[in-house]
Amino acid sequence: MSKPLRVGLIGLGTVASGVAQILLRHRDRTRERAGRDVEITRVAVRDLSKSRDVEIPSDILTTDAMSVATAADVDVVIELIGGISPAKELVEAALNHGKDVVTANKALLCEHGDTLFALARETGRCIAFEAAVAGGCPIIAAMSQSMTGNQITSLAAILNGTSNFILTQMLHNDASYDDAVQEAQECGYAEADPSMDVKGTDAAQKLGILTQLAFGERISPDQFPVQGIDELELEDLHFADELGYAVKLLATAKLVNGHLELHTQPTLIRKERPLAQVDGPYNMIEITGDAVGKAWFSAMGAGQMATASAVVADIIDVAVGRAAITFPHLNLWQTEEKFQLQKSEDIERRYYFRFHVEDRPHVIADIADVLGRNGISLSSVMQKEAQIESPKAGEPPVVPLVFMTHNATEGQLRAAAIELDSLDCVQPPWLCLPVSDDQA
Amino acid sequence: MSKPLRVGLIGLGTVASGVAQILLRHRDRTRERAGRDVEITRVAVRDLSKSRDVEIPSDILTTDAMSVATAADVDVVIELIGGISPAKELVEAALNHGKDVVTANKALLCEHGDTLFALARETGRCIAFEAAVAGGCPIIAAMSQSMTGNQITSLAAILNGTSNFILTQMLHNDASYDDAVQEAQECGYAEADPSMDVKGTDAAQKLGILTQLAFGERISPDQFPVQGIDELELEDLHFADELGYAVKLLATAKLVNGHLELHTQPTLIRKERPLAQVDGPYNMIEITGDAVGKAWFSAMGAGQMATASAVVADIIDVAVGRAAITFPHLNLWQTEEKFQLQKSEDIERRYYFRFHVEDRPHVIADIADVLGRNGISLSSVMQKEAQIESPKAGEPPVVPLVFMTHNATEGQLRAAAIELDSLDCVQPPWLCLPVSDDQA
Repeated sequence: MSKPLRVGLIGLGTVASGVAQILLRHRDRTRERAGRDVEITRVAVRDLSKSRDVEIPSDILTTDAMSVATAADVDVVIELIGGISPAKELVEAALNHGKDVVTANKALLCEHGDTLFALARETGRCIAFEAAVAGGCPIIAAMSQSMTGNQITSLAAILNGTSNFILTQMLHNDASYDDAVQEAQECGYAEADPSMDVKGTDAAQKLGILTQLAFGERISPDQFPVQGIDELELEDLHFADELGYAVKLLATAKLVNGHLELHTQPTLIRKERPLAQVDGPYNMIEITGDAVGKAWFSAMGAGQMATASAVVADIIDVAVGRAAITFPHLNLWQTEEKFQLQKSEDIERRYYFRFHVEDRPHVIADIADVLGRNGISLSSVMQKEAQIESPKAGEPPVVPLVFMTHNATEGQLRAAAIELDSLDCVQPPWLCLPVSDDQA
Repeated sequence: MSKPLRVGLIGLGTVASGVAQILLRHRDRTRERAGRDVEITRVAVRDLSKSRDVEIPSDILTTDAMSVATAADVDVVIELIGGISPAKELVEAALNHGKDVVTANKALLCEHGDTLFALARETGRCIAFEAAVAGGCPIIAAMSQSMTGNQITSLAAILNGTSNFILTQMLHNDASYDDAVQEAQECGYAEADPSMDVKGTDAAQKLGILTQLAFGERISPDQFPVQGIDELELEDLHFADELGYAVKLLATAKLVNGHLELHTQPTLIRKERPLAQVDGPYNMIEITGDAVGKAWFSAMGAGQMATASAVVADIIDVAVGRAAITFPHLNLWQTEEKFQLQKSEDIERRYYFRFHVEDRPHVIADIADVLGRNGISLSSVMQKEAQIESPKAGEPPVVPLVFMTHNATEGQLRAAAIELDSLDCVQPPWLCLPVSDDQA
């Protein structure tokens, strides 16, 4: 039996406590799978006096995170504090001190992955990050090992469990967006400030990481369309449902005519597709490879133990030496350009438009005229009888109006948007979502 | 760059041709991911003169498979001929000659895995077998690496793409079982003799392999209930549908009160569950782990390129050295007993019964009496008006009769079956299927 693997935990929040629980309560099982003991030797916390649901001996607790990152009795540093700084400095220090690193920090990897991965290669260490994307779905292992016989041609994924929980609650419980967010917070799925989740940032960062693995390209979220679920009304989910679609916050990266097309947006997905059927705080990744065809991976996308499970798998991969082999072959964050990013304005899709309009003559004509002059052709129109009350007495009632379009480019859409904003008959805000017509 | 990995292919059928295509047509991409060249140096075929859809230089073709298994210029032997003999002798020879082995042969692993894995450990080689279970789903990698932070508590899986294709065709096209089998044969999903697929043997063998990985127990298909889809009528799929269920050939291994319960049977699954929604020649594995909760993996379960993709991933794992690390930690086919197999007669589930009965008084009472006296309690009864014609003129018409039961044991079921067989009012054959009430 080899020497024990000595683990330094940085952070002891929800996920880290889960990791500690598994390692402490299942020591024998972990030893069997790792081929050696896995011991927690140091733990950095913010507050020594805080009570926790896992028992850590007080003599290995410290508030000095850097001392854990650089400690002589630590072989692998588990960074679970999130955010960019001081996480970046701690990971750099760990690598420079000859430690391997396990992290669940997608923001850090998305923004500074290139620097950190280069440093790991220089120092001959590895960074394992299964837990950074899609919680309990082993998507990093799948892409970096199991799909190596393929060129991946498409990724379509639900990568934010919080948003998916909110959308599910809205539709199933006839709840408003605000009520659903509150419920997500009460269930522990959403932070007090849910912006990173509901505005699509979190999913877009994860898509950035997967895009690196699948296509070898470093693309940051400001280079492609990112739209959150916070613009959606409950009625949009109902309209989509009537039209045969579910609305999911869909992160997409795919090859289209040799160009790489990326976007992370609430998207109408045909109900028959597996992606449309994922409810609650779950994630699903649909991968298409040129050999395997389509494959699906689904599991809890957030939550203490699902993410802890991924972190522990990474720790065991480090312990048995698999991570040291896998990491150098990932070719992550290297800069041979192979696929050119499709310009946002050239991305071509169908769209769903929802307006609240005054219930008076010529409104449909006015809007259709704007769309038509911008080259956007309608495939269907749905107008419901007035349910929404007029905002002001004496004014005509307001009704929802839904258009589905044929293929149009994002550029055409943006040009039309400027005109739509200035139409008197349209109550702001109106909504436009892309439609995915990919088949299951 | 390391020395090339020299590959000896045994077999050049559908899957092997797919493997050769990937290795020959995507040499650069394979080199990048394997960290070295991967070269096919020898290929054993049955018939040298047969024309093929992949170009193999004639000087590396041979009909002498053993010469490939033992060749000095082969590092890894890819066994793709299937069946027990001579596959077993070839794999043994390869291991004894210092080769690693990649195989897709579930029958061989299920029956002789213990011997072969022991030999591989003795000779310091590895056996990689991702392609042996569930085609394009990387379930072996998921269980042996990504789930290592968990004790797996349950596996429920659609492992036979052919059966799933047949069941889908029957329900969606209102096709008889025989017509659907014929279509599966025409599409290349079923063999001329489809017995291994439709009788559940193939799925049961795969379940045996997964059970080894998940629970460390070697259990052969003759130790648990195995039932094929060949007893089903189209009407059963319709009745199940009306009751809110899909029928799938479900392979299950789960811990119930510390015992390991296994079965592979056409099973009624609630329509909301992901497993119920898998159509066509696809596989899905639903795993429950004590940390991660439920996770799903789905992809094509058969077919040339999906399986070839898994074989190539294994070859690359051998090339980079990952397989050599993973294999010794699998603890496969070792015999420390931890979980006792639940005796078949004690397995407790709900059941679906379908009879064709004479449409005359007291028939329901007679059947219900048999079930009741054997401790089987009914939860619902569905009798349709007569559609089936009387088999003989002058006799009463025959109608289908469906019972759903509360929980009952397999032992109670078997006792009842003997009495049911002797009831005059019941036309043979009648059908009984288990119902899975697990939630999504």
